[in-house]
Amino acid sequence: MIHTIKFLPHNTQIKVEENESLIRAAMEAGVHINASCGGSGACGKCRVLIEEGEVAGGISEHLDPEDREKGYRLACMARVVSDITVRIPVESQMETSRLNRQPVNRHTAKAMHVNVEELKEHGLFIPPVEKIFLELDPAVAGDNQADVARIINHLRLHHDEHRLIMSLNLIRKVPDLIRQGDFKVTATIVRPVRKDGKNRIVNIEPFDTTNRNFAIAVDVGTTTVYGQLLDLLTGQVLAEHGEFNGQISYGEDVITRIIFAEKGDGLKILHQKVVETINTIIRKIIKKAGIEQGEVSTITLAGNSTMTQLLLEINPTYIRKDPYVPASVVYPPFNATQVGIELADHTVALIYPGVSSYVGGDIIAGIMASGIYLSEELTLYMDIGTNAEIVIGHKDWMVCTAASAGPAFEGGGITFGMRAIKGAIEDVSINPETFEPMLITIGGKKAKGICGSGLITLAARLLETGLIDSRGKFNREAPTDRIRQTDDIWEYVLVYRENTDIDRDITITEPDLDNLIRAKGAMYSAALTLLEEIGLSIQDLEKIILAGGFGSYVDLESAITIGLLPEIEPDRVTYLGNGSLLGCKINSLTNSLRRNVAEVVNMMTNFELATISSYMDHYMGALFMPHTELNYFPKVKARLEALKK
Amino acid sequence: MIHTIKFLPHNTQIKVEENESLIRAAMEAGVHINASCGGSGACGKCRVLIEEGEVAGGISEHLDPEDREKGYRLACMARVVSDITVRIPVESQMETSRLNRQPVNRHTAKAMHVNVEELKEHGLFIPPVEKIFLELDPAVAGDNQADVARIINHLRLHHDEHRLIMSLNLIRKVPDLIRQGDFKVTATIVRPVRKDGKNRIVNIEPFDTTNRNFAIAVDVGTTTVYGQLLDLLTGQVLAEHGEFNGQISYGEDVITRIIFAEKGDGLKILHQKVVETINTIIRKIIKKAGIEQGEVSTITLAGNSTMTQLLLEINPTYIRKDPYVPASVVYPPFNATQVGIELADHTVALIYPGVSSYVGGDIIAGIMASGIYLSEELTLYMDIGTNAEIVIGHKDWMVCTAASAGPAFEGGGITFGMRAIKGAIEDVSINPETFEPMLITIGGKKAKGICGSGLITLAARLLETGLIDSRGKFNREAPTDRIRQTDDIWEYVLVYRENTDIDRDITITEPDLDNLIRAKGAMYSAALTLLEEIGLSIQDLEKIILAGGFGSYVDLESAITIGLLPEIEPDRVTYLGNGSLLGCKINSLTNSLRRNVAEVVNMMTNFELATISSYMDHYMGALFMPHTELNYFPKVKARLEALKK
Repeated sequence: MIHTIKFLPHNTQIKVEENESLIRAAMEAGVHINASCGGSGACGKCRVLIEEGEVAGGISEHLDPEDREKGYRLACMARVVSDITVRIPVESQMETSRLNRQPVNRHTAKAMHVNVEELKEHGLFIPPVEKIFLELDPAVAGDNQADVARIINHLRLHHDEHRLIMSLNLIRKVPDLIRQGDFKVTATIVRPVRKDGKNRIVNIEPFDTTNRNFAIAVDVGTTTVYGQLLDLLTGQVLAEHGEFNGQISYGEDVITRIIFAEKGDGLKILHQKVVETINTIIRKIIKKAGIEQGEVSTITLAGNSTMTQLLLEINPTYIRKDPYVPASVVYPPFNATQVGIELADHTVALIYPGVSSYVGGDIIAGIMASGIYLSEELTLYMDIGTNAEIVIGHKDWMVCTAASAGPAFEGGGITFGMRAIKGAIEDVSINPETFEPMLITIGGKKAKGICGSGLITLAARLLETGLIDSRGKFNREAPTDRIRQTDDIWEYVLVYRENTDIDRDITITEPDLDNLIRAKGAMYSAALTLLEEIGLSIQDLEKIILAGGFGSYVDLESAITIGLLPEIEPDRVTYLGNGSLLGCKINSLTNSLRRNVAEVVNMMTNFELATISSYMDHYMGALFMPHTELNYFPKVKARLEALKK
Repeated sequence: MIHTIKFLPHNTQIKVEENESLIRAAMEAGVHINASCGGSGACGKCRVLIEEGEVAGGISEHLDPEDREKGYRLACMARVVSDITVRIPVESQMETSRLNRQPVNRHTAKAMHVNVEELKEHGLFIPPVEKIFLELDPAVAGDNQADVARIINHLRLHHDEHRLIMSLNLIRKVPDLIRQGDFKVTATIVRPVRKDGKNRIVNIEPFDTTNRNFAIAVDVGTTTVYGQLLDLLTGQVLAEHGEFNGQISYGEDVITRIIFAEKGDGLKILHQKVVETINTIIRKIIKKAGIEQGEVSTITLAGNSTMTQLLLEINPTYIRKDPYVPASVVYPPFNATQVGIELADHTVALIYPGVSSYVGGDIIAGIMASGIYLSEELTLYMDIGTNAEIVIGHKDWMVCTAASAGPAFEGGGITFGMRAIKGAIEDVSINPETFEPMLITIGGKKAKGICGSGLITLAARLLETGLIDSRGKFNREAPTDRIRQTDDIWEYVLVYRENTDIDRDITITEPDLDNLIRAKGAMYSAALTLLEEIGLSIQDLEKIILAGGFGSYVDLESAITIGLLPEIEPDRVTYLGNGSLLGCKINSLTNSLRRNVAEVVNMMTNFELATISSYMDHYMGALFMPHTELNYFPKVKARLEALKK
């Protein structure tokens, strides 16, 4: 149910879902309310007056009985249950003259989904693994052909299936299985990627089991591994689960892990750790979905080149050494058990092909999921993370590259940086007059730190309010105690100790901002360099697709304001979520799209930034917010100038 | 060096090789010399007088000094070293009037060989596994394609190799191998059976190893397993070795083994036993040839359907149960290590396809080796053994069947039957007047028993001399002590106790002859039935090819005389030897002929004798020597009638 909220004195309206937190609604509307504790009810600063309508909750000891009586509530604890009019008290307000300079409404990117029904409509819902029920003629004198020949001939004659092969392992079991089923069996057939390839019969089950056919999709991330269990009859996700990659204790990034893999049993250990993680996920999603292990026909996995090689137990050392060579870009299908994955003997593992050492299968999976390779529009695909991968192109051509952005987007190298988990500050507003912050944490818990999306918004707000300059240096003259110098380092206090969950002031420092600027600079200049190499400019982009764990929460205007994303209409930005996982899902559901993968890999031209001399110039130019060349960001420029007045 | 021997008083001449034993020369010339001990020098009966020229050896304590002085020698111990004239003494002689009734000269079948030079001339010497040396461009900035892609692209561009794939196991090793060889590597490529199949890169070795490429061919016989090590550069056999199949202690025939396999760990045990045998052979031939295990690129194996399934650890029970169904006729290539064969990880195992439960890969291998499928002439292919397989056809069609002949041809079910090893009587002549035998044993050792080829010749001689009738019953009236009744059983004494190696009289009994007649009857009537089913008769046959361990020693006239083989000119009979092994060898040397295998399997129509009602009639008719219907054997009929006069 949708309710309308009117904020006074701003006279701003917003429509929200029933039960939305009032403070989140305000943030979304661009209405500032002082809130220091992240929305946990601890600081009691986010007092608002409900003038019309009613809210649920919001009553706290921070409010004296009289105030409660008047209708004051804590915005962070109040939930919207009717149309309401809310007045922001004077302590949170800014001068009405500044209202028009308020940050614009939040725009997170529209999410992109795989539409199974659409696939079905277009006849593309053809999983690469299919089950066919066979009512064979029983062997008798006069028709005593070999068991395997009986199956293959039946498939030829009655199901128009050709180019069939069967592995020795399965042939071994056929004589008993065929008779267990009294010559009524179900054959599981894996389709080839190329039309002229072989159709591989990978399993024979007694009787009709065609109504039980499942697949698993796995994104093997450097930090997190996600798995989904898919029903190949309906295309539905029956269960999903994520776990930290068990390799994490051997290094946070791929380079550290490669170095570990180079020594002694390092490769074996890392291989085993990620396989254990995958097996844990498989066990959980199989249990959640209530199916049998043997009913999983296929598993598709995607990861960056290092994750792929560690999963397959392939020495990754040459990935990190000049000239950065991966073992292979394409891997053949193999039995999942061959690498230690705990699935049935017959379960076929498919690995997403990659392009280079730093543009791996996870990116190709994302490209397949995004559909760029079918699009008419010039699209920028960005997978934001420690290793930022960028693809630009459309249906006729694609180019790609990877930049080392550093871990800032994932909270690394930031004094109070953290992953996007409960207690992380994910959204920020700053009162342009008092410089008091309004903070929202994930889960409405007391703040523990700040995550990537929070950091980007914070930087944009600091820039907009003039608390920092375009190089990320604090305005030492700003009339607020929150800006201070500690041990020679300038910083802004987001949350004072008493309202945190960590018994320390949570701040953002100049070195933190410097790391963020380098990270966004690396990404932006990578895109710029790539465009320039192909004779295009940033203005030619028609569409942006964001992938990666954190893209869904990023406020697009903030990302544009700091110069992470090129200036583009927010509605031209789509959020793909975990593109790698989505690509694996698509691969599981439709063999016909899967056939395009090889094509996509072939049409993709890889650029190594290190070999392009202009990259360093672009990078240096991008070490400002939004950029040294403000013409790339005309709207941001205008807005910042307006705010300064 | 060739020498001429003139035998007196027969005035028969024969040319023999230097060092041939004199008694063997006599036997080949159809000259009878009494010889009871098999040629071991024990009985001293084979005295002959060297009238002109000289022999080496032949002096024995059985000859008194005076006789030695005169030129008497023991024929069995004398070797031909010059042209000689030899007189047969009166005790061995028969009346001159009978000389023209002597058995004709021995005709063993002409042996058939794989002519490597001919294959080369016809451009057919293209082993299914080839090595190609690649001088790759080393990876550098600007050309840092993946290692596997570098190899595949190089093969495409510089060697016109396409449709290439590489297994995960090999991909795992490529990054290190390619750098060990400083980007100079040798790729081992397995050709597909079908032209549109994939070329599989199965191994990568540092540097140039193209001059080392070997294959192994293995005939997996029920009794004996033979292996050959082949040089794939020259096509030469570098080493060969045979071992009794380690399964023998679990049953002599396939049915007994299948029954054993049905219980408990039976299948596993039989599988392990034959793999152990194969591994022993591999170790020996690799050592003999002085090569490394890792240099063997491929192993081709052929066996009957039961041997094939036991080797591959596939439940064989349905082979022996009505309606006699094998698991598969075609098996995919697989890694030899997958079934426990001790070769390198990359060594590809190829299994000869079969046709049915009783016409297996060994027969198809033989057919491929014999070239029947290319021939214009209507050919009868017989693999003689316990399980007799018969193929009839030419380039346009082929039919096949199998008959259970029983073990008589391999010495089973015969009182003094034995395998063709040292001490086995392999050739026999009987003096038509005195009924004294002339015996030759394998190795010239004291007789231990009689082998298959000896048995056939013995039966023919007994029939020709009138000692038995066409039903194999002894002439109770014959004027010789050698025919006698012991424990109600009639028999002919071949060797008296004192001249044997077993301290017992060696005899042939009526039940023995009965077993032999059944065995030959089963074979002949199988051929007859097969011909009749396709509207042809025995007279239409233009060519016979004999395969199997014992075919090389069989005297063709004797085999025709007893009705084992149809009546045909002896020079139209070819002996293939171990057709299964020869087929494996061909498979290893030429992929283009290998491609025909699938075609041959497809053009082969299998007949089950049990389902053909006329088979039993034909079988009953064949239980006479040569046959109830003497019109099938006009020449034998004429000769036997002439001998009776």
